[in-house]
Amino acid sequence: MPTMGALHEGHISLLKRARLECDYVTVSIYVNPTQFEEQQAHESYPRDLKNDLELCNEIGVDFVFTPDNSEIYAKNDETIVTLPRLGTVLEGASRPGHFAGVAGVVLRLLNIVDADRAYFGAKDAQQIRVIKRLVKDLHISTAIIECPTVRTSDGLALSSRNVFLNPHERIQALSLSAGLFKAEQAFQIGERSARQLRRLVRSTIVDQDIISIDYVSLADSETLAELTGDVQNDALLSIAAMVGSTRLIDNVVLVV
Amino acid sequence: MPTMGALHEGHISLLKRARLECDYVTVSIYVNPTQFEEQQAHESYPRDLKNDLELCNEIGVDFVFTPDNSEIYAKNDETIVTLPRLGTVLEGASRPGHFAGVAGVVLRLLNIVDADRAYFGAKDAQQIRVIKRLVKDLHISTAIIECPTVRTSDGLALSSRNVFLNPHERIQALSLSAGLFKAEQAFQIGERSARQLRRLVRSTIVDQDIISIDYVSLADSETLAELTGDVQNDALLSIAAMVGSTRLIDNVVLVV
Repeated sequence: MPTMGALHEGHISLLKRARLECDYVTVSIYVNPTQFEEQQAHESYPRDLKNDLELCNEIGVDFVFTPDNSEIYAKNDETIVTLPRLGTVLEGASRPGHFAGVAGVVLRLLNIVDADRAYFGAKDAQQIRVIKRLVKDLHISTAIIECPTVRTSDGLALSSRNVFLNPHERIQALSLSAGLFKAEQAFQIGERSARQLRRLVRSTIVDQDIISIDYVSLADSETLAELTGDVQNDALLSIAAMVGSTRLIDNVVLVV
Repeated sequence: MPTMGALHEGHISLLKRARLECDYVTVSIYVNPTQFEEQQAHESYPRDLKNDLELCNEIGVDFVFTPDNSEIYAKNDETIVTLPRLGTVLEGASRPGHFAGVAGVVLRLLNIVDADRAYFGAKDAQQIRVIKRLVKDLHISTAIIECPTVRTSDGLALSSRNVFLNPHERIQALSLSAGLFKAEQAFQIGERSARQLRRLVRSTIVDQDIISIDYVSLADSETLAELTGDVQNDALLSIAAMVGSTRLIDNVVLVV
């Protein structure tokens, strides 16, 4: 299971499932520089290796792989992996090069670890779609297992970045999932207009002093093509926003 | 062993070596569309599956893989693999996108076949460097084995494209290898000037009605950075030229 460390209950749910389903469980902990646009964001990404190792030990992880950059990127490494469609919308539009970085490091890690199964969280919705596409396109034999988003009891999607939220920001951040849930409820009682569903999310985000929406998207769940008109197939409703100085993402899948 | 078919003595030398060194030998025969700039060049690439299968049978190949496009490229495939340095000089400069196509198909084939060893000919000098780089960068477990260029008794490097040469063009085409050998001999008796060595190759190509030189290159054998000044490390001396309407490439490595 590839991670960037700072393990939380979301990771733990994946690890427990892997522990149940697999003979051997390997966790990689590596904050990959190539998926950050800015060195600053890479450097300030939360790290807590001591706690991570304790958690892995408690869960009964067999191997922890904590490579340095030279173990992932060979001297004179120059191979770049891109997905020009899935990798350039949503998060890829806001963070150019991000998914080339993600695809590149995950491909390298999958080849190094050579696992039968790899576990990823649904919270990073576009990431898992990019990885599934990559694995299918390149005929990689590792099965990609998607695990549900883990939330706090009041709805906040768990993220390593949540540690950056101050108490007031944390309360405001709840409006992201609240907006998604409100639209999901409307969908469940029959609302199909993509425009209206997106509007329901936006209308729930009220405190614009603290929250700055990057995007609210309702897209085909597989191709991530933005929907106009009515929802007719499974659709990914997702949001990205700055809450104070912390960028958060969240999503729900609307299943027809 | 990945091939585009139209097997000749060059391929056979690789196959015989693989047959000696491996328990099981798999040959793929697939004329990959993504490495041709023009559909016409892809369509007119020589094909002779019946003869290829007979040759494979004679040599004792265990498996022949003759995929159609959908077996290599999944529906909605969009994963692109590029090597911005090694893939853009020499052949990559003359044939934009060629090595993205090569890297993409070889990566897919290596993953599908999952061989311990894969054999490539030294005639396609840049191709094997790109593939070695790709395999190293992505931590692919297949060993890449380089086999020497096979030549006719008068020096012509074997190529599937040689069938396109008429008798007069074939004679003129000998000046490519003749130029490389002349420079190699000069190198062996002490000539180190990159400029002078390239000039020796060019000076041997006389019939400019039939032969149009695309490039004569003397480059670092590993990085393919073009050399100025004197040769100090192993260097790749290579040529690409149109002979009539057939594009040929050839090379020698100058070992210091």
